[in-house]
Amino acid sequence: MSVTNTDWSTPNNTISLSPLQPTLPSEIESRNSGGTAHILPNERKKATINVETLTNVLDGGPEKTKKRRFILSPSEGTDQSGKYYMTPQERFKSHIEHFTSAHDEYLGKYIPTVEEVSWMSCNTMNGGTLSNHFGLFLPTVMAQASEEQLSKWLSPTYALQIIGAYAQTELGHGSNVRGIRTVAHYDQKTQEFVLNTPTLPSIKWWPGALGKIATHAMVYAQLILDGKEHGVQAFLIQIRDENHRPLPGIEVGDLGPKLGDHANDTGFLRLDNFRIPRENMLDKNQQVTPEGKFVTRSSGTKNPKAHYATMMLARTSIIMMAGGYLARAVTIAIRYSCVRRQGFIDTSTTHYLSPERQIIDHQVQQYRLFKQLAIAYAFKFSGLWMSKRQQSARIGDSKEALQDLKEIAATAAGLKGLCTYMAWEGIEDCRKCCGGNGYLMASGIAPLAQDYVWQTTAEGDYILMILQLGRFLIGIYEDAVKGVPVSEQCDYLSSVSNPNFNALLCAPVKPISYKDFLNPNYLLSYYKYRVLMELMDTVSVYKKKLAEGCTRDSAFNACAVGTISAVRAHCFYFILRNFITSINEVKDQDIKLVLNDLCSLFGTCLLLDDNWTGCISREQFVWVKQANSELLSAIRPNAVTLVDAFDIPDRVLCSAIGNFDGNVYEALFESAKKGTQNQVDPYIGYKEIIQPKLDVEFLKNRSKL
Amino acid sequence: MSVTNTDWSTPNNTISLSPLQPTLPSEIESRNSGGTAHILPNERKKATINVETLTNVLDGGPEKTKKRRFILSPSEGTDQSGKYYMTPQERFKSHIEHFTSAHDEYLGKYIPTVEEVSWMSCNTMNGGTLSNHFGLFLPTVMAQASEEQLSKWLSPTYALQIIGAYAQTELGHGSNVRGIRTVAHYDQKTQEFVLNTPTLPSIKWWPGALGKIATHAMVYAQLILDGKEHGVQAFLIQIRDENHRPLPGIEVGDLGPKLGDHANDTGFLRLDNFRIPRENMLDKNQQVTPEGKFVTRSSGTKNPKAHYATMMLARTSIIMMAGGYLARAVTIAIRYSCVRRQGFIDTSTTHYLSPERQIIDHQVQQYRLFKQLAIAYAFKFSGLWMSKRQQSARIGDSKEALQDLKEIAATAAGLKGLCTYMAWEGIEDCRKCCGGNGYLMASGIAPLAQDYVWQTTAEGDYILMILQLGRFLIGIYEDAVKGVPVSEQCDYLSSVSNPNFNALLCAPVKPISYKDFLNPNYLLSYYKYRVLMELMDTVSVYKKKLAEGCTRDSAFNACAVGTISAVRAHCFYFILRNFITSINEVKDQDIKLVLNDLCSLFGTCLLLDDNWTGCISREQFVWVKQANSELLSAIRPNAVTLVDAFDIPDRVLCSAIGNFDGNVYEALFESAKKGTQNQVDPYIGYKEIIQPKLDVEFLKNRSKL
Repeated sequence: MSVTNTDWSTPNNTISLSPLQPTLPSEIESRNSGGTAHILPNERKKATINVETLTNVLDGGPEKTKKRRFILSPSEGTDQSGKYYMTPQERFKSHIEHFTSAHDEYLGKYIPTVEEVSWMSCNTMNGGTLSNHFGLFLPTVMAQASEEQLSKWLSPTYALQIIGAYAQTELGHGSNVRGIRTVAHYDQKTQEFVLNTPTLPSIKWWPGALGKIATHAMVYAQLILDGKEHGVQAFLIQIRDENHRPLPGIEVGDLGPKLGDHANDTGFLRLDNFRIPRENMLDKNQQVTPEGKFVTRSSGTKNPKAHYATMMLARTSIIMMAGGYLARAVTIAIRYSCVRRQGFIDTSTTHYLSPERQIIDHQVQQYRLFKQLAIAYAFKFSGLWMSKRQQSARIGDSKEALQDLKEIAATAAGLKGLCTYMAWEGIEDCRKCCGGNGYLMASGIAPLAQDYVWQTTAEGDYILMILQLGRFLIGIYEDAVKGVPVSEQCDYLSSVSNPNFNALLCAPVKPISYKDFLNPNYLLSYYKYRVLMELMDTVSVYKKKLAEGCTRDSAFNACAVGTISAVRAHCFYFILRNFITSINEVKDQDIKLVLNDLCSLFGTCLLLDDNWTGCISREQFVWVKQANSELLSAIRPNAVTLVDAFDIPDRVLCSAIGNFDGNVYEALFESAKKGTQNQVDPYIGYKEIIQPKLDVEFLKNRSKL
Repeated sequence: MSVTNTDWSTPNNTISLSPLQPTLPSEIESRNSGGTAHILPNERKKATINVETLTNVLDGGPEKTKKRRFILSPSEGTDQSGKYYMTPQERFKSHIEHFTSAHDEYLGKYIPTVEEVSWMSCNTMNGGTLSNHFGLFLPTVMAQASEEQLSKWLSPTYALQIIGAYAQTELGHGSNVRGIRTVAHYDQKTQEFVLNTPTLPSIKWWPGALGKIATHAMVYAQLILDGKEHGVQAFLIQIRDENHRPLPGIEVGDLGPKLGDHANDTGFLRLDNFRIPRENMLDKNQQVTPEGKFVTRSSGTKNPKAHYATMMLARTSIIMMAGGYLARAVTIAIRYSCVRRQGFIDTSTTHYLSPERQIIDHQVQQYRLFKQLAIAYAFKFSGLWMSKRQQSARIGDSKEALQDLKEIAATAAGLKGLCTYMAWEGIEDCRKCCGGNGYLMASGIAPLAQDYVWQTTAEGDYILMILQLGRFLIGIYEDAVKGVPVSEQCDYLSSVSNPNFNALLCAPVKPISYKDFLNPNYLLSYYKYRVLMELMDTVSVYKKKLAEGCTRDSAFNACAVGTISAVRAHCFYFILRNFITSINEVKDQDIKLVLNDLCSLFGTCLLLDDNWTGCISREQFVWVKQANSELLSAIRPNAVTLVDAFDIPDRVLCSAIGNFDGNVYEALFESAKKGTQNQVDPYIGYKEIIQPKLDVEFLKNRSKL
């Protein structure tokens, strides 16, 4: 790793201070300049690749880059730095303002694709309460309402003439939807449903938009006819009247402050014998007749694809966002780490103005940041794969098409779980890499982790999602042993049906030197081997428990910790393989070379961080370390260019330390002066509490001895 | 793992709902009851150990338990739940109120020990701006002021008649204190120092209490006499006058909102030719004469012990706090996980009221929570060790005493780094274990991670701290090879000086069955072997780089990623060994048994999570998994008792989901209703932005088809 801060050591740039009257070269550091304006331009000169070409690769083509920029354009020219000083109420209002104006400009013009939704979400101005209306309420109406219902509800919903919340989760029930406790009984006399949250834990709890803004709610409840359960159904109910007051029988409110996500009025809803017309049960697929009979509608043939598709869409969008949010954090942290200097290059120096290392040239900093850079690239490619794979899924009711969908749905669940967790982890580690200034909201990276982290839990908790893929993989393994052919994704199982199968024979070819670990395909052979070993271990515990007489549920629970490891191994294998495939499709040779290094870095870092016991020898492991160290140095010259290629505008980063120009210290100081605490002086509490304690005479004497 | 929710399935407790008029057994769930009051009492009945005895073990004896309770007593009877709804200004004021009243009650009566400081800090009401005055400013005065200065400054400082900030860090300089840029030039004519922050990056930045409350600051600056550097010195300066207005030449303010830590006015300070009397340089050890000569004071013989002791005290206190904060998170998460049920025990059920599993009976949940429980215990014992070891350090100027101090200081640094990082990681994982409700501030666990996380960075960034111990260990290794005897802490190096030394011969004895991994001492042999292997790898890269002509600094940087692994291994070995030693000192046999399981759980979990490549075989690893799974089941009956023993009062937890009584749902609902958003209806922004868009006729029609 060469330390390239020659600028600093040239005589012209050295700060010379004469006693009492310091004078400074005005272009470098001064009373009002941080002296860092030259750093990022110099970094960019080192690049071996074209930024715009790489941006196109990341977006999936120049046309998509163009469209993404159009989607982000409504925020152009706005200054969003004030958001860090807002009260929750002000942020809520600001979100509504931004969202409705963006909506007026482009959302009304077409239905956005999954990718476009992820672009919008990565653009901060769109996150918040109204995202629930468009992201959850509207799709539910579209998917589950009959033609009659659609003709009445779709137009006002789309035009924001009503605002809806998606009310499924309850105070005592989240993940286990089948166990929710809100009930809908049918009253044949009035042809109405009577909705109740009969217990405290059955109060609707957590729906966004419910707390303050919603006029309506899509309420999920157990349908009970004559004491008989008919499963969970959706009911469209109005909760607030034309003056925005709760209707009789409705108790509704906000849940109070929470971690991040400050523009969302997540709320509660209590229903006390609340009556709605029979027609307000969403009845595309099933209906309650006036006489109180439960019937399947002619239009309502079970369509598993529609069911999977909705979930896959939501989760695919979340996977794409994981890459996008992590990219924001990495952009801020890498730019700041180039600008920031800390630690004398020669620690034996006796001069305080001696040159210091750019913090990006500390090996540990490189390891942490470049790893996250590689993960952000890997996730972006995984997101593109998910989006494409979904479109190419086999259509129809055939067994193959259903299997296809099952696999994509399981993959989407597992990737959703793992990618959101790792993105959160990466964002937070990038934040820690920014040291003290990473704690300031104005850094743009301090709020990012907490604003993002809900995605690990919402729309499927990450552990449950990973276990869902785990159940699927155990099934595939059992099938594969019986000889059922496996898909490309699970090709590591291709030979388990062989009666002479010996897992140890699947081990990677022995390396000749550490250089083998610079090769993504060679690294991939280790990932492939590891997932096979992990899955075998897990299935063996599972089978042992079944043999001991456990139910499938108990057996699965008894091997759950191991299942998480196996799914992690499966997903890493999938992500690395897809990274390699994506690079193979790139035409630009310079970019190909750099992405190859980044891909191998991904492979070596996760070999060093994860537990690979039994899958790699000590000697090989030492070579992995050596390869990894070499890859860090190889990536260093393109570090800034690789984050520039994410093409995230300053107004979206909204970061005093991560702006394109690198004028970190000026931006931090400007931001501090704007702080709300600085507008009140002395502080609240001074007069009553502190002033009476202070020694006024001592203070008047100016503390002289 | 047996699922023990028989209460739920008894006929009397089953909720029966008649159509239209649901009736509920009032003692269990009802419209106003969550029906969970019986759960934690039932859990406590399963305990095999006495809570109070275990509390005494954790505190270090019954006398210490008594004293700790006395320290926490000022907050008794106060309701602190309002803090989650406060604005930053209100929290700031609330902290001052609480701190000054607690101060009046006991802080004035004696100087607290390190342990007592950690108890105070774990008691939320004491964290915030005034902690800087007592924790940093006051000790600096005490350590560095001469007798003359003390006679003037100590009394007002102690009595809070002046309030001080510790102003060392700068906008562009944190960790590298020797490189700070604030300068103090001496003006012989007036016998004054002239202080300047000559560049933007040299502005003082981050000191707590500086932003709003401080009247004074301890400013660290480069002392320059006649153009010659005399190192960093401390200057006591007054920054605000008797009306709390900044003095001329001073620009001071708050940095703006940050991650957590909301009652601390971290601030900036700009000095423009600010003059102070010559006597205001802290001159216990050195002085500037009226003629401008730098002289060492007769009283000022270099006392390395004092230097180390200050740092060790601060870091020991932080290590003790790590255990304390993690214990808070674990208490909340384990209690809530017993109360919360999710997931049908038999997933093939068709009835929505079928019994569901307590979430603590999901294996993954147990793994995550019991691991953190074990870590919290381990950290508490490490904190006690640090505190004792410090007191027993050899005194004097002998080479042995210095070596002793060096080792303790390095250990304190490494443990500070690792424990704060792992405590933060554990707190956040406990929060995630609480699912959706873990996002609500009212849960008490949502704010905990962000309020705590600054401790990983402040007073020595965790990576730098770990590297500091790394440099020390590399030195010890080099010495050990030369035959210098090693201390008990590094006993894994005892045979490296043997010319026939072969690391492979240090490998643990082969296990006979998985049961060997239930034994803490057997597990310890793996930890011992691993640190030897990791350290050897690192030193080998280091030496290779030196042989290639690198400077020591560059060579150390080139092996820094490996050094982190080695230090991690060293600390784990240390913590596990100390855990075992602490258990051996326990007299109560029941507690001994339970702590033994917890200790082995610690050992097996970190074997499963960390990368142990080359230190354990695949077969042994499978046995570790099996042992771990058995330990989870063994700990389960005492889970609630083990957190009860931390003895954290409800008012400190301040958690709707973690209270001692387990009435989670009632507390959550009460808390939500109190929310500030619910006091304004309709919300701000409704009239201007949303109302004009809504379809009033549609709303008047009550959404009927």
